[in-house]
Order: sequence, then C-alpha cells, then structure tokens
Amino acid sequence: MADYDVIVIGGGAAGMSAAITAHDRGARVMLFDGETKLGGSTALSGGWFFAAGTSVQRAAGIVGDSPEAMFDYYAQVNQWRIDPPVVRRLCDEAAAALEWLISLGVVFPVKNLTRSGMETVARGHQPDGRGAEIAQMLERAVRARPIDIALGNRVERLLSDGVIARGETATANALVIATGGFGQNREMLRRLYPTAPEDSSSMSAPGSQGDGITMAAAHGATITGHDTGLLIPSASIANGTIEHAGWAMFVNRHGRRFIDESSYHSVLSLAIRAEGGFCFAVFDEATRRGAPPDGSFGDLLGDHDVGDDRMAAWSGAAARASNVDDLAHAIGVPPHVLRGTVARAAPHHALRTVPFYAVRITPGLVALTACGLTIDAEARVLDEAGEPIPAWFAAGETTGNVVGDMYIASGNSLANCLVYGRIAGDNAARYR
Amino acid sequence: MADYDVIVIGGGAAGMSAAITAHDRGARVMLFDGETKLGGSTALSGGWFFAAGTSVQRAAGIVGDSPEAMFDYYAQVNQWRIDPPVVRRLCDEAAAALEWLISLGVVFPVKNLTRSGMETVARGHQPDGRGAEIAQMLERAVRARPIDIALGNRVERLLSDGVIARGETATANALVIATGGFGQNREMLRRLYPTAPEDSSSMSAPGSQGDGITMAAAHGATITGHDTGLLIPSASIANGTIEHAGWAMFVNRHGRRFIDESSYHSVLSLAIRAEGGFCFAVFDEATRRGAPPDGSFGDLLGDHDVGDDRMAAWSGAAARASNVDDLAHAIGVPPHVLRGTVARAAPHHALRTVPFYAVRITPGLVALTACGLTIDAEARVLDEAGEPIPAWFAAGETTGNVVGDMYIASGNSLANCLVYGRIAGDNAARYR
Repeated sequence: MADYDVIVIGGGAAGMSAAITAHDRGARVMLFDGETKLGGSTALSGGWFFAAGTSVQRAAGIVGDSPEAMFDYYAQVNQWRIDPPVVRRLCDEAAAALEWLISLGVVFPVKNLTRSGMETVARGHQPDGRGAEIAQMLERAVRARPIDIALGNRVERLLSDGVIARGETATANALVIATGGFGQNREMLRRLYPTAPEDSSSMSAPGSQGDGITMAAAHGATITGHDTGLLIPSASIANGTIEHAGWAMFVNRHGRRFIDESSYHSVLSLAIRAEGGFCFAVFDEATRRGAPPDGSFGDLLGDHDVGDDRMAAWSGAAARASNVDDLAHAIGVPPHVLRGTVARAAPHHALRTVPFYAVRITPGLVALTACGLTIDAEARVLDEAGEPIPAWFAAGETTGNVVGDMYIASGNSLANCLVYGRIAGDNAARYR
Repeated sequence: MADYDVIVIGGGAAGMSAAITAHDRGARVMLFDGETKLGGSTALSGGWFFAAGTSVQRAAGIVGDSPEAMFDYYAQVNQWRIDPPVVRRLCDEAAAALEWLISLGVVFPVKNLTRSGMETVARGHQPDGRGAEIAQMLERAVRARPIDIALGNRVERLLSDGVIARGETATANALVIATGGFGQNREMLRRLYPTAPEDSSSMSAPGSQGDGITMAAAHGATITGHDTGLLIPSASIANGTIEHAGWAMFVNRHGRRFIDESSYHSVLSLAIRAEGGFCFAVFDEATRRGAPPDGSFGDLLGDHDVGDDRMAAWSGAAARASNVDDLAHAIGVPPHVLRGTVARAAPHHALRTVPFYAVRITPGLVALTACGLTIDAEARVLDEAGEPIPAWFAAGETTGNVVGDMYIASGNSLANCLVYGRIAGDNAARYR
C-alpha cells in the first residue's frame, strides 16, 4: 500500500485547492512545498479572479452573464489560439470555484468588481486582502484537515508512484503537480519565454523554478505555450511594477503614440512587442511632481528635485531636456515627429512645464509564465503523443495550455489555479 | 484655375466611391487608373462587406446590432492594436455605406448574411455576384456621371496640386489616393510585409503595385501597419486559395493539432505563423477522393488515381505513405506524436483507408496588404509629424491604419474602401 493516496507538489492556490478537494473526497493527502511557508505566488498576487455567473455579480445587479460569453471573450482576445475544451471547462467552472473560495472565508466585495478590456460585464473579482487573503483562507482550510504538510521539502524527482524529496521517497497512488511557473529560473525563461528580456525581474515567489515542468518533462510530458506569459511594462530605472498607467504618454521608437496607455498590462506588453520591444513614457515637470508613486520609476517621480547626477546615473534609461527637440535627440526619435505627437497630445498628457522627461519602457517584469505542462479538461498531464500519463494531474501556473498569450486582467491565472486545482484533486482522489 | 476640383487615383471600390461622392457634392472629377478597366482588386474579391445595423440584417430579423458592438469585436480580435478613432468611424458609417451600395443597385441577399469567428450576430454581407457585382454597379454609377476617366494611365508622380501620368500634368485642388495595396510588388512585400513568403502568389489585381503608397511617401506621408495584411493558407503544390477548410486535419511541426481547421483564413494564418510558419494537412485516401476541388491542392484531390511520378514531382510539399509512422518520417514529425494525434482525431478526420497523405501548408497567398498610408478619421493623409498633408486624401487598401493585423472575414477591407472612399470624396469636394 502506498504511503498516501495523493501527493500534491506545491502549496500555492492550485496545490492547496487540490489537497483540500482530494481530502474531502476521502483521500489520504500529503502536500510538499520547497518553501518554508504555504501560499506560493498566489500570496504575492493581486488576487484577481476571472469568473462569470457569480453571486458577487448578482449582488452587483449583473444578470445574464454566462460561461459562454466568457469563453467567447477569452477566445477572441487570444485570436483563437487556445485549447478550446480546456478553456471551456475553465469558464464553465470558474463561478463554482469562486463560490467555494467564498465558502472557505474569502470575501469578494461587490465594490471591487471590475471589467478588463472590452468585457461587456465585470468579471474581475478581488478580495480587499488581494492574493494574500486567498492564500490565507486556503491555508486555514488545509490546516483544518488531517493533511500532511512538508514545508522546506523541495521535490527533486517524480516517480510513477511517488516523489523523492531530500533523498527520501514517498509513494502515492496519484500525483498533483502544482509547482507554479518558472519566473525565477533564468535558464528556463531563456528557453521557454524568450520574449522576457535577459535582465527581467520577476514577481513570482522564489520557488517559481519550474520544478514540476522539468520533472514531468523528464517522464515524457509535453510542454506547450512556448513564449507566452504576462510581462508587465516597466521603466528601466528601477525594479518594480507600473501600478498606475495612463498618467504619461507612451511613444514608440518613431516618436508616435501607438496604444491607449491605460490599457491593461498584457495589452500594453504585446503592443510594445509589436513596436520593436520598447517605447518611451514622455511627461513634463508638473506631471513628474504630481505622478502617483511607482516602484518602476524609482525615485524619479514625486514632488522633489532630481539632480543632474541622478539623471546621469539613469543615462540610456531616462532623459531630461528643456525642449521637445532636445528630448527627441536624447532618445533617438525624429524631432519633427515627436513635436507633432506632443502638439496633438490630450490635455492630461500635454508638455507644458519644463523640463521634459522621457523614460524608456520595456515589458521587463515577469508577472507569470504561461508555458508548461499540457493538461486535458480533466487536469490529466498529457505525454508527447497526447495520452494521459497515468494518475498524474497538474493545475495552475505549471500548465501551458490554459492561460494563453493574452493574459486577461480580470484574473484567468487564479481561475486556472482554483478550477484545475479542484478538478485535479477530485480526479486524483479516485485513486484511493 | 486647376484642371479639376478633384483627381482620384485608382478605379477600384475606394476610388470609384470617392469619385461618385465628390461629383455628387458638385466637384469636377477626374479618375485615373493604370489598368485598362475599372474595378481593381474589388472585382476579383469575394465581395464581403462588414457592417452593423443594416436593412439586410433587419430583414433577417437581426435587431439591436450596433456600431459599438462591431467596434468592440474589431478591437478585441486585433488585441487593441488599432487606431481607435479611425476604426470607430469605419464602424459608425459602414451601414450607411452599404445602404448606398444598395441604392446603386447592388443586391445583398439575406441568405448570404454570415458571421465570422465569434461574432454574436451576422455582419458579413455578400452579393451573389461577389466583388464583381459591387465593382460593376460602382462603374455604372461612375459612367452615368460626367466624370472624366483615364484608363491605362498609370500616375507616375504626385504633385501638391495634381498628378503626372504618361508625362503629362493634370492639376486639381484635391487628390484622393486609392491605388490599392502592393500584393503584386515583390520589393514592397519584402520590405513592408516580410511575413509573406518570398514565393507567395497574390490575389490582387495586377495594378496592386503600391503606387500611391510609394508616391505619397516621397512627399513625407507616414507608412503604418508594418507586416500586416491577409495571408491565405495554401498547399504548396499549386497556386490557388484553399476554399473549403475543415475537411482535412492540420498538424504542426511537432505532429499535433493546434487550431480549428474551419477557422477563417486570418485566424489560420496567424496560428500557423505562431507554429513556426508551416503545418501539414493530413488525410486518407477516401478523404482525398471525396474532398472538394481546391485550386491550392492542384489535381491531388478528386476521385482519380495519383501516380507515383506525380507524388515525386511534389516531393517536399506532399507525401504519401501506407501507414502513419512512414508518413511521419516523410514529413519530419515524431511518429509517436502523430500516432497519438491520429488516434484522437474526430471521425471526419480519421485515417482509415490507405494510403495516407500529408501536404505542407503555408500562409502563402497574399489576399490583401494592410500596410500603407496613415489617415485620420476624415481620410486625410498624415505626414510624419501626424499633420494632414493639405488636400490629400486616401481610402481602401492604400491605407495602413484601418484593417489591422487580424482581417475580419465579414469584410472589413471592402468596408474600408466604401466608408473611407465616400469620406475622401466628400472632403475632397470641399476644395472646389
């Protein structure tokens, strides 16, 4: 007899959802995580959860939203490059997964409901406590159950009937692989997400080393979703995310505007990629002093002076000039073009008070990776021939055919964790 | 006094719409075309016209469709990389342009109304006589008016107040540039649409040399929409378009399915591009004999024998084998993967009767180019600084910021010709 019915590898939202569900179906469950605490990248995330037909929507007076409409939106913004049955099940079960989180104590206030892009209804659900609240309530549910938890135990190898961690073998009838993405693994980023710049930073938890992807691939699992994920545009002068878009005008390498700067991150990043991989945020002194604080811009923004030495230290990433022509020269765009762009700028983007600034923006912050294991709509891990590897399941950021090229800001990554975490736990528990 | 109020360059749908409209606003109009007949690429096209809120839709019982919904769809499938005010006006005025065509004698039968992709309502309007019917009715309207027509007169140069054709100058107060795309110009394809394969063929009229784009750029007009257009997937064994998609299974270079084969051409082409630029249509002998005729597959399809010599002549582009493993070897995909894909194929894609076939598919046929002159929502041609070049207008395939990267199969290119042709004619006539 195996040590456990189900071993879950990874203690983020996907792994904890799988562990709870498998336990509640009667399985004996063991949960491994290489870090010393539960929560993974979920605990660091914004906590956005994409779902249609929820009680929160109904409380907001939204009626008639449906998984069908959610699926249509998903397919369109990804230009149909999705895995239809897998995405369809995500849409079908997202609302139930959200209600389950609510039953575990997560609060999704009506006031936080938001639309992203051109969704006809608001499908973005967020707790006031962001991703940390979701992680916390899942952890509470895990710890309230007789689930064995091994923290600080990084699984080194998968076996067909178990795992090896710290040199010791634990056996199980079924495995759930939920080790997250590979945002912290430079070699994997280089190979599987080449669009991420070589000097990108990552928002993921330190354990996002792609372990599950690498270990399962060694057993013949198929990796899909090459070069997809979510990159967040970032000023190159400091590590950090651009939190408040829209206050500055973005111009491309020709000196022209090319996108609505208040678009969501994935839209901006794909647009910047289409423009050659970088652009410039252009603004004036009054805007700099009044701009919201933003980690990505370091201490450039705010109502204080910025010395020439400071600007010199940012040379190549930021420029300052006393007129538009000099600014254009400093960033290598044609002055007459930038002059025209500035002349037509919207009032809140106008350059009025000297000096003027230009800061180079690149999609430089890896928010999540979307390349990984291929699953079917039962969360089964597929081999190269497309056949399920017996009793292996996967969910969340470890998967490569759920989120797609165009991350949906309403939160399709957390929906992936919860929906496929629950499906994985449910199906794994059948092997008891 | 100038020879004319308005000179229109190009006699396709955009140019003829502009000429008729300018005349009807009281202008003296001259129309040039380098070819010996009117109609341009429109006359060769399918005649699909994308519009929302039309009398044809109402006759079909479709109510409540709107330019807003059409715009949302447009933006989403192009991942928001569009010029919002320009696309917005296209959507706002598409229905009026369609009704105008109807008033000129074009018949859009209710039975031809179709949806493309995931449109919630049918917005694709098509005459039984396809694009030729539209060209014919526009020509009738042009010839019913005192509009001077110079066929076989390729304009060689634009002047700020006229044109030079065959060495002779004609002057005008305003110009409308409507010379179509550059599908027949290899040098421009290489430079402005590099995704089009070096050996691509083109569906455009022979006059699609990009003349207007080149001539206006020489005066400082901005070219936008780099590397966009509509490529149609094509079997490499003959020139011609794949008319009836969906009868064969498509697999990528790894031997896996990756897209719904019945998706529309632009979706297929972008998906094939994301898979490395090629894929394979895989089918069995019974399917080959029963497949609809398709120019792109030459004489491979149909209820006749195909000799080994014929297959040998297609070597590298098509393969035949007596089992899946040999077929996989012949096209360089892993046999165990292709075996799995074939095992899971839908019934109509199953490989049952030997021999089996694989035909290489590339986005090899240029249906239209979408890179060109930048216009504003008044059809004015913009210079590099984004300012209108005085009294110059453009419409149709000559423009670079209307159609976008994801052509919409319901017909946004013809909508561009008609909507911006009419706007250009209307605004040009003010210079009388």
